[in-house]
Amino acid sequence: MTSVKCVSKGCAAPGPVPAGSIRLYSMRFCPFAQRTRLVLNAKEIKHDIVNINLRDKPDWFLEKNPLGQVPTLETSVGEVIYESPITCEYLDEVYPEKKLLPESPFGKAQHKMMMENFSKIPPLTYKIPLGRLKGEDVSGPHTELKQRFSKLNEDLAKKKTKFFGGDSVTMTDYMMWPWFERLQAFDLNDSLESVPELKKWVACMSEDPVVKVSGHSMDTYKAYYKTYLEGKPNFDYGL
Amino acid sequence: MTSVKCVSKGCAAPGPVPAGSIRLYSMRFCPFAQRTRLVLNAKEIKHDIVNINLRDKPDWFLEKNPLGQVPTLETSVGEVIYESPITCEYLDEVYPEKKLLPESPFGKAQHKMMMENFSKIPPLTYKIPLGRLKGEDVSGPHTELKQRFSKLNEDLAKKKTKFFGGDSVTMTDYMMWPWFERLQAFDLNDSLESVPELKKWVACMSEDPVVKVSGHSMDTYKAYYKTYLEGKPNFDYGL
Repeated sequence: MTSVKCVSKGCAAPGPVPAGSIRLYSMRFCPFAQRTRLVLNAKEIKHDIVNINLRDKPDWFLEKNPLGQVPTLETSVGEVIYESPITCEYLDEVYPEKKLLPESPFGKAQHKMMMENFSKIPPLTYKIPLGRLKGEDVSGPHTELKQRFSKLNEDLAKKKTKFFGGDSVTMTDYMMWPWFERLQAFDLNDSLESVPELKKWVACMSEDPVVKVSGHSMDTYKAYYKTYLEGKPNFDYGL
Repeated sequence: MTSVKCVSKGCAAPGPVPAGSIRLYSMRFCPFAQRTRLVLNAKEIKHDIVNINLRDKPDWFLEKNPLGQVPTLETSVGEVIYESPITCEYLDEVYPEKKLLPESPFGKAQHKMMMENFSKIPPLTYKIPLGRLKGEDVSGPHTELKQRFSKLNEDLAKKKTKFFGGDSVTMTDYMMWPWFERLQAFDLNDSLESVPELKKWVACMSEDPVVKVSGHSMDTYKAYYKTYLEGKPNFDYGL
């Protein structure tokens, strides 16, 4: 389902979203869109995927979401939802089977606070390889990344659970996963050296069946991110 | 309740939060903390307020919230919740009387998308007066602020309602309000010139009884923000 070539400006718009299904506008390598794909698959929600050429967006896509971001969800009655945490919370509320978020208000608040803290990590994982490519000193962001990983390691050690929400995978884990899957492609695996609990979490997550089918091989990531860092992302790499 | 002098490093910690009540760590002029105060008051939730000296935070406060931010909520069983949207959503879930958020998942998603778009506005309202003080050219952020207000104006015109969530005040309105209350203090009232629907919203909001008791007089804001812009905020101004 995720191996569909992206559509560009001038391409025909897809037909209406069938009743009983939901559509995700995505990009195969986007970690934010991967969050939504993880939730769609974990909850076994019937959906189709339209991959967008993020450097040459179709007009009809910009009409649906003027911000032009992926992930964007579209329902069969024309509701449009964007921003990855919002799409994931929406899906968890509308499809009550296999709840990924806690039921209690404080549990939900804890998840959101973790996400707020985590939101500082994604920009660092791009800043470091981009800086290296330009020959810049990246020791500052690299140290910050390690400190933030160390904090996550502490959280897991305190919780004494395999995952961030308990002993099974929950929303918090899926929301953080995409950036860990890309660490090696960004040459950042050393950031996991002194964080044994977090490293164990990465190993457990790699075994999750939903995670297994959501991503790409390391070779594919490396090849895609080479085109990305060079400023000419090949969104259809490998197809 | 909001007219309590702030506590600094070295001040004694407050006693435990009584059962049936909730505590807000706040700062009298903080617009983010005002969001939580608006929700506490709109829902008539029994609470006490501890104002924090944000330039000299007590150690016991940093133990409760290592990020040291206000607003921070503390419950009688020691749960700690921070980040203003998270505190407000938590309160609306725990205290079901007078719901401020929509019930439907799409309604909630719409509120969150509005908040995400709105989140670009608060930094601009500080950037402009700070830039002016330094004699910088602020035409860029000033134009951006006007464009963002124009987008809000369009939203209201399309909705044809008095407030952002319908014809009565809801969470979306309270979350945006604090920055509009401060426009005049920041000498930014001209930003409302070409946005008649938004201007009408500001007038309607000013009449809301909860809004009326949550803020300060324009003279007080002006005096406080003078100390703020000069780098020596007087958190106890007027007490």
